[in-house]
Amino acid sequence: MLDLTVPQFNLVYNAFSFTIATMGAATIFFISRGQVSKYYQTAITITGLVTLIATYHYFRIFQSWEASYTVLNGKITATGVAFNDGYRYVDWLLTVPLLLIELILVMKLPRAETYAKATRLGILAALMVILGYPGEISPSYGTRWLFWVLAMIPFLLIVYDLFVGLRESIGKQPQDVRGLVNAARWLTVLSWAFYPVVFVFPMIGFQGGSAETAVQVGYTVADIVSKVGLGLLVYVISVRKSEAESSSASSSGLNPAAAE
Amino acid sequence: MLDLTVPQFNLVYNAFSFTIATMGAATIFFISRGQVSKYYQTAITITGLVTLIATYHYFRIFQSWEASYTVLNGKITATGVAFNDGYRYVDWLLTVPLLLIELILVMKLPRAETYAKATRLGILAALMVILGYPGEISPSYGTRWLFWVLAMIPFLLIVYDLFVGLRESIGKQPQDVRGLVNAARWLTVLSWAFYPVVFVFPMIGFQGGSAETAVQVGYTVADIVSKVGLGLLVYVISVRKSEAESSSASSSGLNPAAAE
Repeated sequence: MLDLTVPQFNLVYNAFSFTIATMGAATIFFISRGQVSKYYQTAITITGLVTLIATYHYFRIFQSWEASYTVLNGKITATGVAFNDGYRYVDWLLTVPLLLIELILVMKLPRAETYAKATRLGILAALMVILGYPGEISPSYGTRWLFWVLAMIPFLLIVYDLFVGLRESIGKQPQDVRGLVNAARWLTVLSWAFYPVVFVFPMIGFQGGSAETAVQVGYTVADIVSKVGLGLLVYVISVRKSEAESSSASSSGLNPAAAE
Repeated sequence: MLDLTVPQFNLVYNAFSFTIATMGAATIFFISRGQVSKYYQTAITITGLVTLIATYHYFRIFQSWEASYTVLNGKITATGVAFNDGYRYVDWLLTVPLLLIELILVMKLPRAETYAKATRLGILAALMVILGYPGEISPSYGTRWLFWVLAMIPFLLIVYDLFVGLRESIGKQPQDVRGLVNAARWLTVLSWAFYPVVFVFPMIGFQGGSAETAVQVGYTVADIVSKVGLGLLVYVISVRKSEAESSSASSSGLNPAAAE
């Protein structure tokens, strides 16, 4: 029955622990919000909340993994306690809408547009996660495929919004950060595309210990890229826009003290 | 089989606990960032992240050591739970690139140069750790030597970058801190040189309880020197440069308010 090997168990174990450390450190970095002006602090705080929520969930995931297997004298046995994959969906339900909101906030669109786009993308993101869950926990391939297709609808609407709906707004970003905002959009879509692929693994024959290892390590890498990677991009964009806005305010003669 | 003595077990146990306290205290010191101007706060925050990540991992290492042995009535027995050396590599994968990035940031090079050097050194550092791991977990001496040699390549490139690539930039540092930046570079190279030496211990005949004790205590001392020692140097450099820059801004008459 159990074909997870000790090195596979250890790889997943260490990947979870690595992620606790990464998300925790990223949280402190974002929450300290150095070099960012008042407007962008909200985007950076939300970035820190995303990694804080992920730190908590990876702590729980790590404990659940540890509770599911015992390794003694180089031999691995399943304890009978099920590994709880639900933590991932609970995490995504909170963090995935927040990731899109931080991306909208850092663009500093007019207030009404910020509100409309953040609401629409936030609801689509939550819907995508909610529709994925019944498929994730079902043993039936038919049910899994049904909810995979349903969850893909909001995902494709998000991709459409990011590439078509935001095209004009990205064109209006300062020259200095336009490339970075574009990179943030691509990083979001590419790292998110990984999740529906992993979801399909058991339905196309990947099973057993190697598949479980690939799924857990894969989700972990995708979580780090989509949360910490996007967060760092949003941070750099915020720092550059803060600098540019403070120097343009000073060169217009409004605020000479900011010239340093 | 087990030739670890109770005093050896206790020495390692106390060294790990000492390190949790040291790294934890250093984290609070760095994160509070007193006397450092806005630009240098990023370098000091990263310094604090390095010690925070190490605090977390030493906590895990300590727990893993405790789970591996039972000491009762002055007698030591192995529990059968393996001591997880993976935590060290997971820690280094995060902290070693960050240590080089903090060294680059505190030099305050032009933005493009900061970005290029931090990226190059960060990637080389991560590569060095990744290439060391397959050797560390292999029982075969041939495999250990192979990955030792492979990991030495990025290490030597880092040493070359620090001494040749950064020579000109260090020459441009203010007189007041040039010696300290040079010391930071030497401290990094000398403390890092310790790791490949410890790696070789089991291959040159050091085995059993004394070797395990020497390896664990040795890695621990090297971690404290390379993380907290370097961090303190970077902190002193940041304080001096902050002071010098604020007084030169005020003596040039541009911003009298910054003179305080």
